[in-house]
Amino acid sequence: MSEIRKDYVTDTWVVISEERARRPKDYIRTHLKLQNGTCVFCEGNEKQTPPEIYAFRSAGSMPDSPGWWIRTVPNKFPALRIEGKQERVTSSVFSSMNGIGCHEVIVESPAHDKPIALLPAIQVREVIEMYKFRLADLSNDRRFKYIIIFENHGAEAGASLEHPHSQVIATPIIPVHVASELRGADNFFTDMGGECIFDNIISEELKAGKRVVFQNSSFVCITPFASKYPYEMMILPRRHMPNFTDISESEVNDLAEMLRKCFNSLYTLLDDPPYNFYIHTAPVNGRDYLFYHWHLEITPRVSRLAGFERGTGFYINTLSPETAAQMLAGEQSESRQSTVENHVATAGTNLRLPEET
Amino acid sequence: MSEIRKDYVTDTWVVISEERARRPKDYIRTHLKLQNGTCVFCEGNEKQTPPEIYAFRSAGSMPDSPGWWIRTVPNKFPALRIEGKQERVTSSVFSSMNGIGCHEVIVESPAHDKPIALLPAIQVREVIEMYKFRLADLSNDRRFKYIIIFENHGAEAGASLEHPHSQVIATPIIPVHVASELRGADNFFTDMGGECIFDNIISEELKAGKRVVFQNSSFVCITPFASKYPYEMMILPRRHMPNFTDISESEVNDLAEMLRKCFNSLYTLLDDPPYNFYIHTAPVNGRDYLFYHWHLEITPRVSRLAGFERGTGFYINTLSPETAAQMLAGEQSESRQSTVENHVATAGTNLRLPEET
Repeated sequence: MSEIRKDYVTDTWVVISEERARRPKDYIRTHLKLQNGTCVFCEGNEKQTPPEIYAFRSAGSMPDSPGWWIRTVPNKFPALRIEGKQERVTSSVFSSMNGIGCHEVIVESPAHDKPIALLPAIQVREVIEMYKFRLADLSNDRRFKYIIIFENHGAEAGASLEHPHSQVIATPIIPVHVASELRGADNFFTDMGGECIFDNIISEELKAGKRVVFQNSSFVCITPFASKYPYEMMILPRRHMPNFTDISESEVNDLAEMLRKCFNSLYTLLDDPPYNFYIHTAPVNGRDYLFYHWHLEITPRVSRLAGFERGTGFYINTLSPETAAQMLAGEQSESRQSTVENHVATAGTNLRLPEET
Repeated sequence: MSEIRKDYVTDTWVVISEERARRPKDYIRTHLKLQNGTCVFCEGNEKQTPPEIYAFRSAGSMPDSPGWWIRTVPNKFPALRIEGKQERVTSSVFSSMNGIGCHEVIVESPAHDKPIALLPAIQVREVIEMYKFRLADLSNDRRFKYIIIFENHGAEAGASLEHPHSQVIATPIIPVHVASELRGADNFFTDMGGECIFDNIISEELKAGKRVVFQNSSFVCITPFASKYPYEMMILPRRHMPNFTDISESEVNDLAEMLRKCFNSLYTLLDDPPYNFYIHTAPVNGRDYLFYHWHLEITPRVSRLAGFERGTGFYINTLSPETAAQMLAGEQSESRQSTVENHVATAGTNLRLPEET
């Protein structure tokens, strides 16, 4: 018998239906090929991107030249542009505004073929520091209401370039999924006399135990109770923080460790599957969102959404989060694990190690 | 400069960004292969599906044997099951209910390789009559709150079998996308002293002209102002009807003509692309939804959603609905058009023509 579960925070329901028990190999594993040829994100090709916004680079090296270990550049084909004044037009059933915002790309390392699963911890920490820096910087622009950081890994997940990179988009509105989480968290806060729903999720999930994938001193990773997708994960900071930019140095270290573990686990279990991840943090330039609690969501792309999901927003997930948590947390065969560790061990040799800045 | 547009009815925004003007051939055209071997939906293989629920078949032919032209069977791997009493459990942050509902499959014709684009009009009319019949029948079950009819065409759109078929799922809740439309339509109705927002969409879009794809005496097909997907279409009945089951016989005829035109156009323009379509009708077994107006949405799958869309629910569409409408409405080359017409002309020969029932 399948079960219908409600998202912790929003009014979204999910069908958990394991009628056909599937093993990891039954999920989609197409590795669609991305374009070949010169990679514009590789070291030495810096002139092929728009001029860099910011880079972590070795002392004395020049912008838009080699010597960097993380590099942020404007997206060459931005969805939203930074120039102009925000204007809104409404006429009968038509409402629109001009496309003000910004769209940046964060190249995660000079290595063309090393996703987060295979990067050394020190490099992942620097990626997180860059996220924090870009969020803080962009939130100074009063026209922006929301800033999202996300990654597309693999063609099936919408990536158009293979070289691992994250993206930052600032928007002049609060997007619908975020608005829906804010509404749910606000209602809970009011109903419970000032409690954070995410704090409750953490304590209840730790108590239940069966959906906890990993934990360290600052973070907990769970497969959400109403997971929409097989192997979906949610990383929550233990400390209540509305904004990602509130993250401390030791939390950056712990998040780097957590991300490597999560992506390493996916890499091993599902043979480097396509995935998306994104950070949900409080909106900027508006009111305070004290009831909110930032978190990071990882959604592998191993199943296809169909007309039912498109038409209803009601998802059918063929893998229970309990099974997923167990698989992600361990029981990986020795041999496969050691393969990944070899990759990880050699990954650093292709990288310039970051210097203290 | 890109533009940000709000959905007519819901609080959902879309970025329309044609920075990289694309031609139809630039969109995804993978035709992923579906499984081969014996097709369980082909004539002669009736015993390989669960026993049929209802079929339009020639007089004297027996259930689960040849002689049908449309056949409805239970889904062999249902997401929701019909047996049981609806029960809901809530405990701290966890809310769930058992998976009561139903999941049926409507085989659209005995022809294995004829999607709606290539079926004769008389056959499409019968498919619509079957939709109407299944909706009316299932709405008698008081446990169901919503019934959705949808189709997945092509592997990229989530189809697992090639033989054209629609699906019907009845759910014990009103799904989030539908709830959001109901809320928007209800608010408009209240604000405007009893006007239907969909009636307004029709009249405003006919006045604007540039997003109208096709129209006949009962239906208008538009590319919505805030289309989420390239080549998205919406078919609205001119007459105000909350429920799909209110459709008259002449409207069934006109809808059949409209569906054939829309799918024919997609088939020609994008070389038989993967797509989903679904019918949004009023919920069942609750209050009246006089402010609602059923409609049908067609969403081709020619672009991939990425982390931005997953994380925000805010879509980026690289084709403006104005361009899409123009391309879908015509300007197809003579030679390609005639190819489709040949297909259409021969399609009927593989089909038993429905008899009057």
